[in-house]
Amino acid sequence: MPLYLDDVEDGWKHSFGRIEVRRDEVIDFARRFDPQDFHLDDDAAARGPFGTLTASGWHTAAMGMRMIVDEWSKLDMRSLGSPGIEAINFLKPVRPGDVLTSELELLDRRPSNSRPDRVIAKFRQALRNQNDDVVFTARHICFFPRKPV
Amino acid sequence: MPLYLDDVEDGWKHSFGRIEVRRDEVIDFARRFDPQDFHLDDDAAARGPFGTLTASGWHTAAMGMRMIVDEWSKLDMRSLGSPGIEAINFLKPVRPGDVLTSELELLDRRPSNSRPDRVIAKFRQALRNQNDDVVFTARHICFFPRKPV
Repeated sequence: MPLYLDDVEDGWKHSFGRIEVRRDEVIDFARRFDPQDFHLDDDAAARGPFGTLTASGWHTAAMGMRMIVDEWSKLDMRSLGSPGIEAINFLKPVRPGDVLTSELELLDRRPSNSRPDRVIAKFRQALRNQNDDVVFTARHICFFPRKPV
Repeated sequence: MPLYLDDVEDGWKHSFGRIEVRRDEVIDFARRFDPQDFHLDDDAAARGPFGTLTASGWHTAAMGMRMIVDEWSKLDMRSLGSPGIEAINFLKPVRPGDVLTSELELLDRRPSNSRPDRVIAKFRQALRNQNDDVVFTARHICFFPRKPV
């Protein structure tokens, strides 16, 4: 049975996911998409702004997306894509060996004006590390199908 | 000679970069970070919200970051990381075969209050495809070193 956004309560809050940040994946992502030396090389990172190797913020965001998509799949909740993200905050460095978990809170939802068969929802995501520090937040805007009547 | 942000004029605007969106990379990124079927599979995508296979928005953002980092490297401009992104808009689908280019415009810069050796800058990035459609915009906040006196 698919879960429709119409069926969850206001302020729905949900914790899920677990991704261990792997050193080889940090370097691989940085090599492809964000080749700044503090994401690539220990010696350069030691002299850089964070003092040690850190994951690209875009890699952290992408790991957060992976946890959302896996959770939606588990709940049989289908998104129809996203028009954008309202704000992203990189609050603490994410390092190889960190273990990230995700929270998602429904902030708002309304029927689409242009597509009445769709709901537009806004979620706040927070990623925490193994020390319970919030390392990343984002406000995602997503489209979902309305529940058929 | 490094380029310091202190040395560029207000409203500095710059066009650069060229990335061809490869089908295998779209699917590889989606498999790792955004395994929604409209990013993975042609048949499912044909029935999905975009009608054809599209790149994950996070993949598009990451390709945009790659163009920025390559350009900074060419200009010998060093960033000290980012506290966040103010807004991301996914304006048009990005599809395999598309060719993306980037624009970056300096919107604002000021010395950091907490770290007077740093400048905080805000840039608007726009990515265009081969038809000159803007497919993606983002407002990046970045730290840079102040020019030594």
